[in-house]
Formats: sequence, C-alpha cells, structure tokens
Amino acid sequence: QIVAALMAGPSPDRPAPLQGRCALITAGPTREPLDPVRFIGNRSSGRMGYALAAALAARGAEVTLVSGPSALAPPALAGLVRVETASQMAAAVMERVAGCDLFVATAAVADYRPAAPASDKIKKDAAELTIRLVRNPDILAQVAASPARPFTVGFAAETERLEEHAAAKLRAKGLDMIAANRVGGEAGGFDADDNALVVLWPGGRRAFALMPKTRLAEQLADLIVERYLASLAG
Amino acid sequence: QIVAALMAGPSPDRPAPLQGRCALITAGPTREPLDPVRFIGNRSSGRMGYALAAALAARGAEVTLVSGPSALAPPALAGLVRVETASQMAAAVMERVAGCDLFVATAAVADYRPAAPASDKIKKDAAELTIRLVRNPDILAQVAASPARPFTVGFAAETERLEEHAAAKLRAKGLDMIAANRVGGEAGGFDADDNALVVLWPGGRRAFALMPKTRLAEQLADLIVERYLASLAG
Repeated sequence: QIVAALMAGPSPDRPAPLQGRCALITAGPTREPLDPVRFIGNRSSGRMGYALAAALAARGAEVTLVSGPSALAPPALAGLVRVETASQMAAAVMERVAGCDLFVATAAVADYRPAAPASDKIKKDAAELTIRLVRNPDILAQVAASPARPFTVGFAAETERLEEHAAAKLRAKGLDMIAANRVGGEAGGFDADDNALVVLWPGGRRAFALMPKTRLAEQLADLIVERYLASLAG
Repeated sequence: QIVAALMAGPSPDRPAPLQGRCALITAGPTREPLDPVRFIGNRSSGRMGYALAAALAARGAEVTLVSGPSALAPPALAGLVRVETASQMAAAVMERVAGCDLFVATAAVADYRPAAPASDKIKKDAAELTIRLVRNPDILAQVAASPARPFTVGFAAETERLEEHAAAKLRAKGLDMIAANRVGGEAGGFDADDNALVVLWPGGRRAFALMPKTRLAEQLADLIVERYLASLAG
C-alpha cells in the first residue's frame, strides 16, 4: 500500500504527469423533474467520478468537477459545480470546456426528461398516468464535436452486451477512450463500493478486475495519463 | 434548552408516556424502477421521519422504522426495515401493523409506478418515449381501514391549498391526525433542515412555525402523545 501510494502520487523526484493541465470531470446522477417533488433519477452514487477527480488532481491536474446530486463529500479540487438536471450539466460543461486538456464524463446523465414538468404537485386522482419524455442534450457528443476539443473519455454503463455497446459508443461519438462497466447485476456498478471496467480506445483495450472504486480510479487515472500523453506525442 | 430537554424526555420521576406502547413509522422516499438503473423518486430526505422516530422512542415507545432509501444514519430503535418501492413498504407495514398502538406515515410514497419496468437498460434510440404509470397501494388508507387499527397519523406534502387538501385527506382516509407541510417552495419541506407544519385532527388544529426538523419532531411527538392519550380516554 505504501509502495502503491508512492508510485501513484507526485513526488519531488518525479514531477506530476498532469502538472499544468486542466481536467473537467462530470460525476453523479442527474435528476429530471416531473413536478416540484418528483423526479426521474438513477442509481449513480458519484463514487467513481469523485475518486477519479481526486486521482487526476493527485497527478497534478487542475480539476473542476461538475456533479449531479450526490451524498458524497467532494474531494478538495480547483473547482466544484453542483447541478441537478442534464441541461444544467450540459451548460456547466460547455461553459468550461474550452481550453481544457482532459474531459472525463463519468456522470450518469439522464437520456430523457419529462417533456412538460408540472409546476404544482401532480394529484393522484387518475388510476393511470402517461408521461411523455424527450431526449436530453448529449454532453459527451457535444464535447467530442467541439473545436480544439480536450482528450475525451466517456463511460458506458450497460446491462447487456457490454463491450459491443461500448465499442459502438467510442466510434459513434469519436471518443479518445471509453470505460465500460456492467450495471444492474449483483457485483459492482452503480451505488456499489466495487467496480470492474473494460476500457477501450482506438486500437487498444484493457480490462480491470472487480476492485474498490478508489483503487480502480487510481489505475484508470494512470491509463488516462498514459493514453493522453501518447495522444500528444502522436 | 435544558428545560425543554427535561420536559420532553422521560425521567425517573415521570414515567415515559408511551412506555409499553409500540409505534410503526414510515420515512423517506420510495423509488419506483423504470429499468435496472433508472427510477422515479422524490425529494424526501427522511429527516422528519427519522427525527420523529427518535422522539417517540425517547417518549418510551418501542419504535419500528420502515424506511425508503435515505442517506441518513438511522437512530437507535427497536427495529429498522429498509425498503425501496411503495409495494415493498406496503408489505413491510401490513406485516407489522397488527397489535401496534401508533402508526405514523411520514414517508413520501410514490403514488404511481411504471406499469412495466424494463429488465434491461432502456436504449436511447427514440427521440421521444412514453411511460405508462399505474397507481401504487395507498398504505395510509390500508392501515386506517384495517381491523383494530392503531392511532393513525398521516402527512400531507402540498404545493398549493395546503390546509384544504390536508383536511380532505384527514376525512377521506378517516385518520386520527394529519400533519401538513408546504413543499416545492423556498422555505422548509423536502430535503431541507427546517420545516413548518399545520396539524389537523377531527375537531382540532395546531400550527407549528418554521423551525429545525429535530425540534419540530419533539413538539409534534408531544402533540401525538396528547391526542393518542385523549383517544384512549375518549
């Protein structure tokens, strides 16, 4: 553990690899209001994103974390922006992404939001109710398509055909890297302490076995640094 | 503060008023799954219910708390049952309510749930999506209609016409007492530290000004004790 800590963190002998670099990270769920009290949410705890933000900061990056509602105490970072909805998260990211070196999208952003949230609490008179949902902005695709875009890392949470879906997302959005994890099962994923990941990039792949999210974040941060530096060299 | 603590808590000189009585309390939100990762939730933190459970326990009751997902540490109680959906909460309550002296429903139970939750994560191919919702069981009405029912206290969270809606709920469900609070506004209510209440019972009314939920819970517990003992005498 002491050896791992010495290897991971910056030291006087070995400068931090992301010194002088800026990283923007999204984390946590979003909430899409149905009315003033009800919302559509998801099971993301923010653990993976918060741990990764801390790991990238420990590697020298100036990290800004854009976080949806999370019960976690945020790590000490250059910046913290709290948002609730996907639209707010998109606005917070697009305001800050220009000039950033790295963008890591760990947030579980709601793909859909209620088309017309009610301004008063919905009464329960009807036996049935139908809610119409419309698509939310695709933050990751917007960043990946922006001019002079940062090194862009996405996450894919899938319940089935994990690697196939992640590879399709990597290609379709033109990402530099994608980390895929299985959700909805027994082990790891959303709202759990442990996680396992398969990371894909154009021409490469690395698998990380189930382990605590804090340790996984350290290993993933090292891989992000490695691929990011390779992209500068390439 | 010392005087208030002496008045509120049990003491060797004055036996706890709910000694030997059993109380069942629901608290927190419920989550109704849309798929393995998404759900319909609400902004209830569980604070009011957890504080009220502690306050009734301090007055001598043997308290069982049935709690939806909450980030709070539960108080030390005779029993704690964690549930997620309204149906699970209804089952947990109906299993335990027989023989109980008090039932206090502080939980923000989802009135509706998705008619057909997806077993795999919903893909975001469509520009729009429609979700059909069906009514959940009405736990409070079920308890109030049960044979040899406990002294039954409901909560009403309303965004408009607070007292009118609460009085209608008191009558319609045949409750012994209802505590109404405004939600969705600036001050108090869901996911806040403070709250204000208007409490109604057949033939009576008491208003509690905005104050910390822990203090409000103490005062509400005293009123519950007062009305409960009056119901035994009557």
